[in-house]
Amino acid sequence: MDQLKPKPGNSFPLTPLGFLERAATVYGDCSSVVYDNITYTWSQTYRRCLQLASSLSSVGIETGHVVSIVAPNIPAMYELHFAVPMSGAILNTINTRLDARTISVLLQHSESKLVFVDHLVSALIIEAISLFPTHTKTPRLVVVTDHDDGVKTLDFIDTYENMVRNAMAAVGATNIFLRKIDVPTIYSLIREHGVTHMCGAPVVLNMLSKFPQAEPLDRPVHILTAGAPPPAPVLLRTESLGFIVSHGYGLTETAGVVVSCAWKPHWNMLPATEKARLKARQGVRTIGFTEVDVVDPKTGLGVKRDGLTRGEIVMRGGCVMLGYLKDEESTSKCMRDGWFYSGDVAVLHPDGYIDIKDRSKDVIISGGENISSAEVESILYSHPLIDEAAVVARPDPLWQETPCAFVCLKKELTQKPSEKDIIEYCRGRLPHYMVPKAVVFKQELPKTATGKVQKFVLRDIAKSMLHSRM
Amino acid sequence: MDQLKPKPGNSFPLTPLGFLERAATVYGDCSSVVYDNITYTWSQTYRRCLQLASSLSSVGIETGHVVSIVAPNIPAMYELHFAVPMSGAILNTINTRLDARTISVLLQHSESKLVFVDHLVSALIIEAISLFPTHTKTPRLVVVTDHDDGVKTLDFIDTYENMVRNAMAAVGATNIFLRKIDVPTIYSLIREHGVTHMCGAPVVLNMLSKFPQAEPLDRPVHILTAGAPPPAPVLLRTESLGFIVSHGYGLTETAGVVVSCAWKPHWNMLPATEKARLKARQGVRTIGFTEVDVVDPKTGLGVKRDGLTRGEIVMRGGCVMLGYLKDEESTSKCMRDGWFYSGDVAVLHPDGYIDIKDRSKDVIISGGENISSAEVESILYSHPLIDEAAVVARPDPLWQETPCAFVCLKKELTQKPSEKDIIEYCRGRLPHYMVPKAVVFKQELPKTATGKVQKFVLRDIAKSMLHSRM
Repeated sequence: MDQLKPKPGNSFPLTPLGFLERAATVYGDCSSVVYDNITYTWSQTYRRCLQLASSLSSVGIETGHVVSIVAPNIPAMYELHFAVPMSGAILNTINTRLDARTISVLLQHSESKLVFVDHLVSALIIEAISLFPTHTKTPRLVVVTDHDDGVKTLDFIDTYENMVRNAMAAVGATNIFLRKIDVPTIYSLIREHGVTHMCGAPVVLNMLSKFPQAEPLDRPVHILTAGAPPPAPVLLRTESLGFIVSHGYGLTETAGVVVSCAWKPHWNMLPATEKARLKARQGVRTIGFTEVDVVDPKTGLGVKRDGLTRGEIVMRGGCVMLGYLKDEESTSKCMRDGWFYSGDVAVLHPDGYIDIKDRSKDVIISGGENISSAEVESILYSHPLIDEAAVVARPDPLWQETPCAFVCLKKELTQKPSEKDIIEYCRGRLPHYMVPKAVVFKQELPKTATGKVQKFVLRDIAKSMLHSRM
Repeated sequence: MDQLKPKPGNSFPLTPLGFLERAATVYGDCSSVVYDNITYTWSQTYRRCLQLASSLSSVGIETGHVVSIVAPNIPAMYELHFAVPMSGAILNTINTRLDARTISVLLQHSESKLVFVDHLVSALIIEAISLFPTHTKTPRLVVVTDHDDGVKTLDFIDTYENMVRNAMAAVGATNIFLRKIDVPTIYSLIREHGVTHMCGAPVVLNMLSKFPQAEPLDRPVHILTAGAPPPAPVLLRTESLGFIVSHGYGLTETAGVVVSCAWKPHWNMLPATEKARLKARQGVRTIGFTEVDVVDPKTGLGVKRDGLTRGEIVMRGGCVMLGYLKDEESTSKCMRDGWFYSGDVAVLHPDGYIDIKDRSKDVIISGGENISSAEVESILYSHPLIDEAAVVARPDPLWQETPCAFVCLKKELTQKPSEKDIIEYCRGRLPHYMVPKAVVFKQELPKTATGKVQKFVLRDIAKSMLHSRM
């Protein structure tokens, strides 16, 4: 059979660009984008993306060039996900919450030729570009406003993963855009547009479920959560409102969610707390992904499927990144022996489901014992007076590290718990070595644009506390 | 960025074998196979396929070898679809309705090392092998029986396409097997097992909808039809019973359905006959397929999207075959200019939906006019006393070809229509040149294992009729 070789008629990569072209044919007159008072159809979105790609080419953007965007969850972000690859260029999305220095480094490192900037962060980008070394070629800027007819091919995402964006075109669904996470707006958009599917980090689920005016939903809304292990109490409260939570796991390096907690029908008969415990697990590989395993990072051998033995999550499949740009050292560190090493610590349950115990760097090592910050956080979240919690390592001269808890209490409490109360609560529910040695009360926790707690900020605070106390 | 090259961690083909391994993890205790009194779970099916693959290796089957199976729609057919690729070998499925001579040619041409044979057709295969030239190495035989514990790794498909088979493992659904198409059994299995999805050629839909004891279904059953353009009256009757019909199109050369009549929500508001007319169109490419077009086979240029201009359907995408085995001439004839030429004649409607007018070889050319046999059949199917119909070309000394109709009348008619009555009926509904010049009444039409009418048999009859009449 060796005379049968691939030919032009059967050698095509599967690209999401084809989803859009098909959506324009099949769902041409269905809504694609809803944002404020703007509504586009799939045929309009297709045409706008083609026009935008054509504009990119006309200003000199070529195959392999990098085009950046610094914007929140707005339609321009969606359109550029199609238009930039259409032009042959590479899209680089930059978080609006980064500082000017970091953005400057990212623009220089990626050799961006063009930067699309949301009008609300234009000053930040101008500052970032002013930090370029003198005599360096700087990228051209295109300011994006919500209602700017001057940039006809342009107008306007955040918590959506790349894969979700493209899947919307695959099924011809409507994207509802949000500049920022605002709970009352989210509830009103759900009702107004009959939202069926949404995404949100566990912290967003927590905000939705604790909203005082939250009423049970008129019809079920599927919500995909990822970014951190969702605490069981948060899952319980969210589902009691009528949300159907799916839990997924992935990294930027895997282009989004590649592991999900595939739900088994007979689990529906279990008690609610047991269901929440099962759903808090990251699960199994998604259908299009090749393989996921938990291994001893030293030997590369799979760990026991006992739900106890920790190891590092390793993955392989077509959507794993090629590598880090211009950083062979980091690339070869995580891409080895045919696997991508995630840096995340997990156990494998006897049923083959993965359960993350911690991001490697989030593990607290105290007196030689590994403490999972996620486990401690889960206990803090079960406290009736605690609204949000995050646990990080605090350097300790004796124990090397000890857990330090940051908590936000519920609003309008008549009696606030003390640091000692919280520690006592944990002591009754955790092994002694896992109990936080310090509890810091905060009005709010520092977060990324996607709602993930910025633990590095908390680690800095914990470290400085130690110095001031010593 | 050119230093970023694919690596072992991100260069994996997507193979359906992974679907089965995942199904064993996620749906391990759900039913995979139901046949007579046998039920297997997904973990059992996975284990059986692994054992079977291992057995294949132990008898000397290697990468690139061909393993054939001659069997109806039984579980062994399903298991071999996984086990044979697992062993590195190539599966060759052979229709049980072929004659010994054809089967012998297929076995020799494919250089089959091993043949799995259903016990009911073993005599046929022994005859096929006896037709091998003397001193030729013949393949080993494994007889498959329904309840044979001697072939532990084996026990037991037909109307399912390859893609459907594998998709079942992707979602952990249950496969219900049927040795042959038997309408009362189909209805009783639908009720007994709560069937949600099934496949059937238009002729199967016709049989299901005309079954005298057919009662409306308890709940909707999705039925994918393909293989021939479904006549609108058959669609109407089938859907009135509670079936939800999806219409697809594909060829063995494209590994099954690659075009489907994607349904638009607003079409639901149209009158039933208009809905049936829209659904009878083949539609648009499926989401994972690259491109489908209708072109002038001489120039390769796309036809007008006017629903009138005929052309040949051309396709390209990852699931198009590499080519015909040991037949470079046929391969280069259909695989040219980066496209696969299907040999099927269609028009493209203004909305981008494809509508097959005929398989190239089914076109009847009469006095220089092209007649679509599908169009004439659709009129015959609308006749209240006709149960089944097929139209083929009959050679004609004057007109080159004329349409000849073969019809099966409904059972137990008190008054049967004459040839003249049928011709009169068509004359009122078709252009004169398209009206059948002869009508042959049959008890039943010759069909393939998948229920497609064997037009070559009818063409032979039509030809001989001409000779006997001349």
